[in-house]
Amino acid sequence: MKQFADFELTTEYIDRFREALDKRDHDFIVGILEDVNPADITTLLDEFDSEESKYVINLLDVSVRSEIVRNLEPDTRKNFLKIFEVEALVEFMNVLDSDDVADILNELPIKTSEEVIAGLEPVLKSQVIDLLRYDENVAGGLMAKELITARDHWTVVQCVEEIRKQAENVVTKFYTVYVVDEHDKLLGKVALQELILKDSKTLVKDLIEDVISVETYLEDREVAEVMQKYDLESVPVVNVQGTLVGRITIDDIVDVITEQAEEDRQLMSGITEDVEEDDTVWKNTRARLPWLLIGIVGGIMSARFMGLFEGQLAKVTAISFFVPLIQATGGNVGIQSSSLVVQSLAHGSDEDGLLKRLSKVFSVAILNGLFLSAIVLGVTLLVFSNQQLSFVVSISLFAVVIFASFVGTATPLILNKLGFNPALASGPFITTINDLLGLAVYFLTVSLLL
Amino acid sequence: MKQFADFELTTEYIDRFREALDKRDHDFIVGILEDVNPADITTLLDEFDSEESKYVINLLDVSVRSEIVRNLEPDTRKNFLKIFEVEALVEFMNVLDSDDVADILNELPIKTSEEVIAGLEPVLKSQVIDLLRYDENVAGGLMAKELITARDHWTVVQCVEEIRKQAENVVTKFYTVYVVDEHDKLLGKVALQELILKDSKTLVKDLIEDVISVETYLEDREVAEVMQKYDLESVPVVNVQGTLVGRITIDDIVDVITEQAEEDRQLMSGITEDVEEDDTVWKNTRARLPWLLIGIVGGIMSARFMGLFEGQLAKVTAISFFVPLIQATGGNVGIQSSSLVVQSLAHGSDEDGLLKRLSKVFSVAILNGLFLSAIVLGVTLLVFSNQQLSFVVSISLFAVVIFASFVGTATPLILNKLGFNPALASGPFITTINDLLGLAVYFLTVSLLL
Repeated sequence: MKQFADFELTTEYIDRFREALDKRDHDFIVGILEDVNPADITTLLDEFDSEESKYVINLLDVSVRSEIVRNLEPDTRKNFLKIFEVEALVEFMNVLDSDDVADILNELPIKTSEEVIAGLEPVLKSQVIDLLRYDENVAGGLMAKELITARDHWTVVQCVEEIRKQAENVVTKFYTVYVVDEHDKLLGKVALQELILKDSKTLVKDLIEDVISVETYLEDREVAEVMQKYDLESVPVVNVQGTLVGRITIDDIVDVITEQAEEDRQLMSGITEDVEEDDTVWKNTRARLPWLLIGIVGGIMSARFMGLFEGQLAKVTAISFFVPLIQATGGNVGIQSSSLVVQSLAHGSDEDGLLKRLSKVFSVAILNGLFLSAIVLGVTLLVFSNQQLSFVVSISLFAVVIFASFVGTATPLILNKLGFNPALASGPFITTINDLLGLAVYFLTVSLLL
Repeated sequence: MKQFADFELTTEYIDRFREALDKRDHDFIVGILEDVNPADITTLLDEFDSEESKYVINLLDVSVRSEIVRNLEPDTRKNFLKIFEVEALVEFMNVLDSDDVADILNELPIKTSEEVIAGLEPVLKSQVIDLLRYDENVAGGLMAKELITARDHWTVVQCVEEIRKQAENVVTKFYTVYVVDEHDKLLGKVALQELILKDSKTLVKDLIEDVISVETYLEDREVAEVMQKYDLESVPVVNVQGTLVGRITIDDIVDVITEQAEEDRQLMSGITEDVEEDDTVWKNTRARLPWLLIGIVGGIMSARFMGLFEGQLAKVTAISFFVPLIQATGGNVGIQSSSLVVQSLAHGSDEDGLLKRLSKVFSVAILNGLFLSAIVLGVTLLVFSNQQLSFVVSISLFAVVIFASFVGTATPLILNKLGFNPALASGPFITTINDLLGLAVYFLTVSLLL
């Protein structure tokens, strides 16, 4: 029995393992890994280079080997697969599910991929070829072909007999039997527990339940929404004719949800490419530059803009002191607003109507603006000697809060309408716009009132 | 048969429904909702007020009614529950799973909660009382008590017989039978499919598989990690003695993952409380103020700081033109860096060693810094007339990129070590620090070189 707490990747464990590996101590390695979950072996191998990992993996059973490769991060896996011969690749792909095989094939060079496909078992081969037709980010690209089907006129005992036959080809766990007609059109589902609990002469049609399905072309984000909304642990995939063509399990959807949260975070923090800290220096640099450049363009525009007010700035130097205050507040307010809109878009919240939404944004902005302006007025009157400037700063701060709220609210809504990811608006984009806007509002107020 | 595409919440549908509801047209409402999934009815009722929803809900079967209440967002539910009598609450709680009942009870005033508990069925009552002992954010608070157990010396046929008995009390779907000894200590699991596929005389001990379990006190974040790592659709929960006390299903964990992504996003965008766009104006204002105030404090400090250089600014007004450029770049670089660190912390990435990490951050910063400085030097030389200032701006920009990278990298690492959520460092916090730091670097360079 292996419990979660049993395996912990301690430094001692790694060191002992490294020692055995350096000595290529076959027996020790096989012994120590015998009862370890493949997912833990994957984590362990992260500590070693590809050649070392290859040595270890080749000592293991093919089912464990395939699980390890399946668990690797796509980036690591890409490098890792290069050191295997086609025959070795074919060997462990043959024991994986069709969706995992398709994912891995997508990471191989086309030539290798074709060679591997040629070597797959006939059933898996045709399943995989079918899956490769779909984009990776739609239901068809997420689904696996392995599933168990039954006909509605069967009895429970017939059904179990058929499951026994079909299950020979299906290595994975399954919890649901999908009921189809003679053209494989999806009719409904029967939970495994029903087959166990009901009398063996019961007809499948008397056990059949409604089933929620998704179509092959549905985007992964939407599949995730459907599965979350209806609390599904798996969902059947049908084509436009309603024919059952595969099923998606929740573990793949958990990955989709996690990746999307990460993508949103990257957009919010101005990183363009899918990059990780341990990617190369050059990749890291390249992923950061585009948004930094946009910030620079904004900064140079700010400088040019302030240049227009050189005369005034020369007269009252203190005007420039408050530029950071105005810009920081504008930036913060903008990000807050856009982030809340992105969140409510993600929830698919009832569109309260644009007018109601904006009037609320306006109320919140007025309250925040009044509060902040009052504080700034008080503090600057106390700390700085130019009373008139204190009033100007305070008034323009209020205006900036209002404007930035509107820009922060409107931008993600517009991006969403245009079909872009609204999270794009929570990042440097909004900040740059609000920096310029804040500056304009401030200097306009200065010109008018000072 | 109900398929996903069948139900769409069109404006026409809502209008028709509203009309029927205004007329309190009992038959029409029952008819139109008959084949609709409870989750969809929940979405529909979002469009109506609590009294209207109550009228609709009371027309429905108790199982549908309880599903709807289960699906409601916690905030909506809290208001919604107020309009029901204790008897009505007891009625639909009695058909829910123990974990959902415990969640709902946590949202009720203590007096109502006690009254409801008193009315629950005896088995559910003791289960719920046990669950209420745990914090909501640990495994014990996430688990449900409903599970199916077997003993290892049973045969498959005995096991099925026992499942039949136990399943009477378990309303939900289950896919796994947990094997325990005479003290309810968890020994392993048997997949339902094994019970169907194997000969009825097979002993449970010959079908038993290793099982990964979590302990009651494990945090929800960690439970999510375990389930993701090992691709589990459910996980048994044991207490410190190793006794099986409940199980957590993946749908609850999906909610945990989604909530955490949201929490991180809020931290990153400077929103303190768990707030949504459609909360009250006052709650929205309050959730935004704290970080805005910190920004204001930073802004006032900036103003004070620039005041120290008043003489220089009066001589060369153009110095102030580049404050926005410097600050924006510092802010952007800081957020990018911290966001990548937060991401790699979330992945539980191998801690490459602080030195290796920092040397990489340094390389990326130098590359980005050189690139941006060169561009800014070129543009400012062309566009602005003060050559010496162009060099100063360009040099300090380089320095700011380096400093901001380090602050952005170090802050989340330090927060993480201190036990805070490192995502806190990706928000206004980092920006405010970097604003001040950038200003200091810039004016220091100005003093030295201009």
